[in-house]
Amino acid sequence: MGRRDLGLLFSELPCETAAVFTHNIVSGAPLLVTREAVETGGVRAVVANSGIANAATGERGIEDAYVMQSRAAEALGIEEREVAVASTGVIGERLPMEQISAGIRLAAGVLGKGGAGFAESILTTDTRTKGTAVRAEIGGRTITVGGTAKGSGMIHPNMGTMLAFLTTDAAVEGACLKETLSRVTDRTFNRVTVDGDTSPSDMALLMANGAAGNEPLTLDSPNYPIFAEAVENVARTLAREIARDGEGATRLVEVAVEGAASEESAVALAKSVVASNLVKAAVFGEDANWGRVLTAMGNSGVTFDPGAVELWFGPIKVFSGGEPVPHDEAEANATLASGEVKITARLSEGDASATAWGCDLSYEYVRINGSYRT
Amino acid sequence: MGRRDLGLLFSELPCETAAVFTHNIVSGAPLLVTREAVETGGVRAVVANSGIANAATGERGIEDAYVMQSRAAEALGIEEREVAVASTGVIGERLPMEQISAGIRLAAGVLGKGGAGFAESILTTDTRTKGTAVRAEIGGRTITVGGTAKGSGMIHPNMGTMLAFLTTDAAVEGACLKETLSRVTDRTFNRVTVDGDTSPSDMALLMANGAAGNEPLTLDSPNYPIFAEAVENVARTLAREIARDGEGATRLVEVAVEGAASEESAVALAKSVVASNLVKAAVFGEDANWGRVLTAMGNSGVTFDPGAVELWFGPIKVFSGGEPVPHDEAEANATLASGEVKITARLSEGDASATAWGCDLSYEYVRINGSYRT
Repeated sequence: MGRRDLGLLFSELPCETAAVFTHNIVSGAPLLVTREAVETGGVRAVVANSGIANAATGERGIEDAYVMQSRAAEALGIEEREVAVASTGVIGERLPMEQISAGIRLAAGVLGKGGAGFAESILTTDTRTKGTAVRAEIGGRTITVGGTAKGSGMIHPNMGTMLAFLTTDAAVEGACLKETLSRVTDRTFNRVTVDGDTSPSDMALLMANGAAGNEPLTLDSPNYPIFAEAVENVARTLAREIARDGEGATRLVEVAVEGAASEESAVALAKSVVASNLVKAAVFGEDANWGRVLTAMGNSGVTFDPGAVELWFGPIKVFSGGEPVPHDEAEANATLASGEVKITARLSEGDASATAWGCDLSYEYVRINGSYRT
Repeated sequence: MGRRDLGLLFSELPCETAAVFTHNIVSGAPLLVTREAVETGGVRAVVANSGIANAATGERGIEDAYVMQSRAAEALGIEEREVAVASTGVIGERLPMEQISAGIRLAAGVLGKGGAGFAESILTTDTRTKGTAVRAEIGGRTITVGGTAKGSGMIHPNMGTMLAFLTTDAAVEGACLKETLSRVTDRTFNRVTVDGDTSPSDMALLMANGAAGNEPLTLDSPNYPIFAEAVENVARTLAREIARDGEGATRLVEVAVEGAASEESAVALAKSVVASNLVKAAVFGEDANWGRVLTAMGNSGVTFDPGAVELWFGPIKVFSGGEPVPHDEAEANATLASGEVKITARLSEGDASATAWGCDLSYEYVRINGSYRT
């Protein structure tokens, strides 16, 4: 492949680690192994490969995932249960275990020597690495939350082919870490859609090793909201980058719904718009086709009064009171020409709001997915 | 536009008429008028236009739909309540009422003079007209069921931008006709998906004028199953033609699910596969990517054991017992090269089965929908 396709992430200190996994019934072998490790407690390393997902590979695939875990533990000098395994790529093919084992030894040898090796190793059809970090003060200590992710195709609410690894040096109690990752995933990664398909391989991990030396955080700590916000900021940045780098995407599309009856309704409405092939193709074609936005909302399963909806493309109001607002169409189309497109829908059902992220549907998406394996 | 875009369908005899409408919350003005007419009883004419959907056009759009109904009634010399109105096309623009009125007079003048004028008048991005008819014997009388439809984009289970008009000379009681259309729609039109979007304009009408002179049918008539089958055959043919002529489609994709726990589960599984962008793009690329089929099933919301699933592309078994069945990949890809692609999934959850129809996802779909209005 001519690029890195195996990576190790490792904390020298012990960690608290939380994880969330795909909701797809078809779940890859690595998820079984990682779920088990996270439940046992103490995961402080990740071994990840791209190219082959090790999903739909039967019993032998599960054995391969355990071997991968074991080889990584050996190379790092830690317990097997301390290693999470992640794979992404083609479904139904077995891992080339000799190359995997050699790759693990190689990666362990260069650990701590810098470089974006891990972020690169997890990419598939992604066009660039994704990473970010934020700092915050907690009880006089500076803590850092960092993260890297891959996305691209099969991305949809409820975790598409997405791998996200968040790390922090904050000290956080286990239950608190778990709740934080779950809440944040709901508000960030689960609001991204590229193509409506979900993958068997998706996971997000949040590892905290306590090196910052703060009093361990619980949900009740006065400083907890600062930590939660830092994690959400990292996750939101990664989620947006995943949407922006969707397969074949030329634009990031952000859909904001306001005035919904509940956050759940707002999320469903925003996701329905951002997932609509017709809306996505219209954005690609720079056609401010608000009829498709309204129709996608009507198709969301949420009940609302269409006559009370207001729609904007960027700052331009295009629909209100059940009919079009006269506007300069060229100007509305121009709001779709930049790299970031914002569509806003305001209802009069209540006070809830939500944002979802996606991308346009281009010729390139069809090209990539018409010839992924060949 | 250089093609017919207004049509009239008319029965000289009075009719029983049943109708089903879009489930989209955003519903076009013509649907309001047609629903009212069908509920009042006696609809025996349809006036339809393509190009503008008359949806999201406010109070004035509703007035326009009533005017359209009234002009058609006048031209045909019947009551307003006997006329159904259907519009399809761009959302949010008002109808050019002068042209519509002139078109109605013109169409009324050539009624009964043959030709596929009506079938052509309802097309939007469709590439060809769709029509079929079947004959059957009922109590010594020959009855005919015929139908025409348009589809193309915004097609999805629960009635995409689909118009379907079925007519029969059988005598059928009102309640029986209604139940027949509802059942048949569920098993045919609602199992078609082109792009997962639904439209505000969709409707299917079934008109029966009794000219065949049979004893009026009820659900309990010994001959009812013959009639129901005839209607279902017409609707299935139209549904398949809609899928085959999906926007940008190069192939009809038929997904059959067997061995499901319930018909509802089988439908959900089949629809999830046929609606998956990744499956659709793989078919376009002639890539027998069964991993995407399995994953789309896992993403359907239906619970099942993936390890007990068997998958076929055409006659070639590709997955069984939780892992790939060794097969000639070129041979499997070749099953995607013809105009009709068949994908079969067999579960071991029960005895229920269902079939759904769709099409591939091509560059042309993106081109059409990136430049529909412009």
